[in-house]
Amino acid sequence: MSSTEDTRQRLLKAARRLFAERGYDGASVRAITRAAGSNVAAVGYHFGSKEALYKEVIRAMDDPLAERIVALSRDEDTPVRQRIRILLQEVFQHLWDNPDQTRFMVELRLYRTEWLADLAQILAPITEALIRLVQQGQSEGTIRAGDPLLLAMSLMSQPVYFMLVTRKIPQGILPVEPSTEAGRAVYLDHMVDFALAGLAPTAGVAHGRGS
Amino acid sequence: MSSTEDTRQRLLKAARRLFAERGYDGASVRAITRAAGSNVAAVGYHFGSKEALYKEVIRAMDDPLAERIVALSRDEDTPVRQRIRILLQEVFQHLWDNPDQTRFMVELRLYRTEWLADLAQILAPITEALIRLVQQGQSEGTIRAGDPLLLAMSLMSQPVYFMLVTRKIPQGILPVEPSTEAGRAVYLDHMVDFALAGLAPTAGVAHGRGS
Repeated sequence: MSSTEDTRQRLLKAARRLFAERGYDGASVRAITRAAGSNVAAVGYHFGSKEALYKEVIRAMDDPLAERIVALSRDEDTPVRQRIRILLQEVFQHLWDNPDQTRFMVELRLYRTEWLADLAQILAPITEALIRLVQQGQSEGTIRAGDPLLLAMSLMSQPVYFMLVTRKIPQGILPVEPSTEAGRAVYLDHMVDFALAGLAPTAGVAHGRGS
Repeated sequence: MSSTEDTRQRLLKAARRLFAERGYDGASVRAITRAAGSNVAAVGYHFGSKEALYKEVIRAMDDPLAERIVALSRDEDTPVRQRIRILLQEVFQHLWDNPDQTRFMVELRLYRTEWLADLAQILAPITEALIRLVQQGQSEGTIRAGDPLLLAMSLMSQPVYFMLVTRKIPQGILPVEPSTEAGRAVYLDHMVDFALAGLAPTAGVAHGRGS
């Protein structure tokens, strides 16, 4: 890695941490460059502005998940309902392992609504892949008719909502503790059941998982 | 209304606005009492502390919705699936009309995790009512077997997630604009279809995992 590329990566890493901890306004360019061990002008040089850096942090954080979702949407040899199980598992685990991602998403949607067009653009590969996956299910008859984006949104609602409402909840309140992998598996099974039933062509069609 | 009660209400109103705009740390007791036109000691006198005031704001904001959900859970003459439609409609409309409520919920869940036990207590009437409603559906055979709280969470995920991801999105990105009542009706119909299908018993086949 060249030293220039190295500085860019250190800035992204420091910015991700500080924006997540303090929010956009709370994290100054000075604090970010100091944490990255770089010159205060480095943000301007590498990204153009603090705002552009913030959006780049979101894009970089989003990329690994986007790549997996796009790959799933193209894996046409695997039945759609099986790919949906994999999708929910990966999204839930990703959000669980990267709690700061939810903070960024929520900060943008609640407080930075002027940037939502940029966010939609950053998320476009995921959105398009989800629509493609739903449309494949509609073609093969395993997903009911309806607007593919609305159906995709209901699908994604499961891991996002469960992450938001189960993470950090004190013991004894939830029916299952999600802090262990075994506990999260119970939530995952539930989400998959609920989402597949919600998407199924006819309400009430059996969707047992065998065994 | 006595003058003491009036001061209390003015403090709650000012605190709700300032906490929503600036977050818990950003809204000082001084700013809140100034906005309420009261003495700086009034927060201590009426609520005991800033933290207690914050929690009281959440309780007061939550009460009207809690009341409606509890009433729905007791209206046993109306079929459960019909009450679920009413529930989703009221929750979605309530969140739409009170966007600051989502800010408080999200701030608590992401940044004030030490207060989540208090939040769970404030939300207990809603949680219990939702569990009761799901159990009634399970008794009458219109909701599938499964942990009632997990099923209730998937139900609530719909209005919360759709509120979070559709509000303020620039025109031309969503398939339907949610900013009009007619647009929101499309989202509501979708959520109701998805949730009712997700909760439905499987046709003729016992679903249960452990069975």
